[in-house]
This record gives sequence, C-alpha cells and structure tokens, in this order.
Amino acid sequence: MIHTKIQIRWSDIDQLGHLYNGNYQQYFDLGKTDYFYNYLKLNGNWRETGEWFVAAQTLNNFFSSVVMSEEIEVETTIHSIGNKSFKIYQRMINSVTGELKSDSLSVHVCYNPHTKETHQIPDSLRAKLEKELSKDQGNA
Amino acid sequence: MIHTKIQIRWSDIDQLGHLYNGNYQQYFDLGKTDYFYNYLKLNGNWRETGEWFVAAQTLNNFFSSVVMSEEIEVETTIHSIGNKSFKIYQRMINSVTGELKSDSLSVHVCYNPHTKETHQIPDSLRAKLEKELSKDQGNA
Amino acid sequence: MIHTKIQIRWSDIDQLGHLYNGNYQQYFDLGKTDYFYNYLKLNGNWRETGEWFVAAQTLNNFFSSVVMSEEIEVETTIHSIGNKSFKIYQRMINSVTGELKSDSLSVHVCYNPHTKETHQIPDSLRAKLEKELSKDQGNA
Amino acid sequence: MIHTKIQIRWSDIDQLGHLYNGNYQQYFDLGKTDYFYNYLKLNGNWRETGEWFVAAQTLNNFFSSVVMSEEIEVETTIHSIGNKSFKIYQRMINSVTGELKSDSLSVHVCYNPHTKETHQIPDSLRAKLEKELSKDQGNA
Repeated sequence: MIHTKIQIRWSDIDQLGHLYNGNYQQYFDLGKTDYFYNYLKLNGNWRETGEWFVAAQTLNNFFSSVVMSEEIEVETTIHSIGNKSFKIYQRMINSVTGELKSDSLSVHVCYNPHTKETHQIPDSLRAKLEKELSKDQGNA
Repeated sequence: MIHTKIQIRWSDIDQLGHLYNGNYQQYFDLGKTDYFYNYLKLNGNWRETGEWFVAAQTLNNFFSSVVMSEEIEVETTIHSIGNKSFKIYQRMINSVTGELKSDSLSVHVCYNPHTKETHQIPDSLRAKLEKELSKDQGNA
Repeated sequence: MIHTKIQIRWSDIDQLGHLYNGNYQQYFDLGKTDYFYNYLKLNGNWRETGEWFVAAQTLNNFFSSVVMSEEIEVETTIHSIGNKSFKIYQRMINSVTGELKSDSLSVHVCYNPHTKETHQIPDSLRAKLEKELSKDQGNA
Repeated sequence: MIHTKIQIRWSDIDQLGHLYNGNYQQYFDLGKTDYFYNYLKLNGNWRETGEWFVAAQTLNNFFSSVVMSEEIEVETTIHSIGNKSFKIYQRMINSVTGELKSDSLSVHVCYNPHTKETHQIPDSLRAKLEKELSKDQGNA
C-alpha cells in the first residue's frame, strides 16, 4: 500500500466549483503510475518484452466532492490476483480530515500489444503483486 | 436513445497511440450533456431551483482501444429509474464498423447543492425519464 | 482557409463558468489537425519519413470569454512560409454572432524526430502551403 | 520568484511520447496559482470584491520536449507592471539538468467580472507586485 499526494490543477475543477467527475480517474492513475513505477519498480521496457497490462474495467464510487483548496491523496493497494488479471483497489481521501471522497476498483489484464493477445501474469510481476497482497492483508 | 458523434482531440490519445483510459469518461459525458440539454431539454436553471443530480457511481468496461482516425459515437439510454436516483447506460462504438469499444453504467442521484441533501426525482424529470425508458424498452 | 466546428466539453469550462485559458490551445489544435489531415491530406507516415514539424512558438490573444452554450469555430490559415518553418494564423469565433474570441499565431519548424535535427520544408509540403497561402491572400 | 515542482500525469504525454504542446500552459498555470495563492497570499474573495485579473495574452516558446520520467519545475517571476495590467514571466526547466524546456510571457489585466470592465491594479495587489519586482530585479 502506498499513498500518493495529488497536485490539483485549476483545470481539474468544473463550473460547479468541484473536481470534475471525469478527472477522478486521472488522480487514481497518478496513484497507479506511482505504484508501478516508483514503488514496484516495473522496469517499463514493456515495448520490448510485450509484458504489459491494460485496464479492462473500472468501478468508481463518488462519495463527496473535492474543492481546489483541499489536500488530496490516493491510497493504492492490490485487491486480488487471478490468472491473467489482477485487481487494484484505491481510495481518494482528504489528507487532513481523512474524509473518503471516492474509491475505485479496477481490473487489469496482461496483454501483449504486439500480438494483441492476453497472457498469464508474468512470474516476476506475480511475485511482486503477491508480496504486496500479503503485506496489505497483514495490515488489514 | 440518442447517438452523439465525438470529435476526437489530439490530446485524447496517449503515448501508446490509443484513447487514454481516463478520457473515455469525457466521451460518455459528451453523450450525457447531449442527452440532457439537447434531447430532454432540461432547462438548466438548476442553480436557482436546486433540482439537480450528480454522478454517484460509474462502471466502465473497456473492450477495445480507440485510435485517432476512427469515427466514434456514444449511444445513451435510460437504464432504470429509482426513487431518488436513476441509471444511464451508454455504449461507445465505431460508427463505421459498429465495433463496441466500451460501455458505461452510471448512477445519478438527485441532489440539492444548496442544502447538500438528496431528494426525490422531481416529477417533471421523472416524466421525461419514464417516457424515454418506455421508448427504449419498446426498441429492445 | 478552413473553418472547424468545435465540440465543447463540460470539462473545458472552468470554475468561473468560462472556457479555461489553457484549453484554447486544444481548440486551435482541433483546427490544425483538421487542416493538415483532412484538408491538406498530409499522409501522416511521418514516423517513417521523418518529415514532420513541431510547434516552436504560440502567441495567443484572449479577447472575450466562451461559455458552454456557444457555437464556436476555429478559422485556420497559412500566415507565412520561411525556409525551415512556417506560420499558422487562427481565429476563434462565435459561429452565430461572428464575435472574435481569441486568435493565435504559431510557428512550426520542420523537424526529424529520429535525427532530432531541423530541416528544410519538404517540397511536397511547401507546394501545398504555398498554394494555400496564395489562395488566402487572394481572399484578403 | 518562486519554483513550483510539477506532478506529471500520464494523460499529459501525447502519442509522440512528449508533453503535449497544449498542456504546457497547465504547467505554467500551476506556477501561477502557486504564486498568487500560496506565495502572494491573494485572499481569493474576488467573487465578492470584483478585484480580479484575467489573461489577455500568452507568448510561449517551446525549446525542448519533456518526457514522463523527467523532473520538471516552473519558475515564476513578475516581468513588469503597468496601469491596468502586469506581465508574468515563467521558465519551465528540468530540475536536475537545468535544461530550459519552454518559457512564457503572459499579460494579465485587472477585470471586474460583475461589471465586465477593466480597472486599475488595486493598491494592495500593486504593492505586492512591486515588492516582488524589485526583489527579482535585485537578483538579476
């Protein structure tokens, strides 16, 4: 599990004065890129290896609106691991009050962009995901 | 049910050459604003009346990627109508081939931004939604 | 010279209720992609040929704000043609009233992304640009 | 003068693998909101007082492309102060190498959104701007 601070942009806020509905996903994706690149250290040479994953489904709940002056962070954890896919669970919270703003459960499928076929989760990725899952469950 | 043609922007496409995951919601929202403003003729004075609705949940499936040169449209229908909320179902398709790219089921809750409280679906809106629902079901 | 109708998105509008300053460029770029791909029929295989151009400078004036309900279009013309670069001039107007909202003068330099070097405007592109420039000047 | 670290988003990068041209302005605007809200402590009750300013012109130069893995920051300074308007000068640089990526000179005009008229720079704002200008010039 990691926490990623979000830098809110003027353009994120809509004419109601709140974070635009469609921009929540950008915040969750900041959590995901932080998780995979900075934390899990995926090496990013997927263009060469073809070992990559794509989002197949997102289920987002919107509990409370976000305004420009808030301090917002996204918490990212592994939810579960399947054969060809795994799920990420994320919570968007106010860093000061802890208020839950939104959560997101997303399904990611391993996919080779060259062959355009899905494939098993590679062993090296599976090992990293399982280690995190067991840590997260230990914390729960 | 309506169909909304999407004007794809250069900035919608990510470094993989595909429509960025987080931008699908902008396309679905083009369908929704087209539906509510142009088709259902909601009068938009919700700032005064307090009769408005907000997205509470989105469930998006991603079936196939979208590239810059495609012709894309979003189909928007009423899925179901509850007491304080209703659901919208949308499909994103290639206008030429009919290929299904993504779909989205979203829950909208009636909400007064002044009192910050949810409320029953107003009669005028309910009448419009029910009329569309019955038309859509007749088409199915 | 061409005119490109803009499909305004909810997310384009900021918390002041106007088109966000930083999004004007997306509208001008819709005009440019329309101009180069649909009108001038540049074949887009620049990844192979290395014959491409990049924006080196934009000078944007903001005359009047844009709201969600307006019909907006962008007019795109060739301003001038140099040795390695050319300039595009664009006007953003309300399609109904003709009100000028913004204009943009941008410098584009021919650049090979593989060698990372600038180069002369290729003959085929120069022929197209000069033909348009002479038409636009004839209209002026 | 202040420096603002930028949190790069996946969606900022275009299909060429570089920061999209139109998104540079979002980075410069992160510098501006940081400058006015956090550094100059403008109180933000401009909706009530009508003392506000809008961008009238931006002149952006693009010197070098930005990729996802770079550390980027924006440097924001007061360039000059007029009667009803002032200019901001900003530089976007790689925090590690110091490479200049882009710069931006923008004109801001004091404007009352209620009366839709321009006005003199308010004394309180002028005092803050002049103090900064003199500090920046002392550093030059």
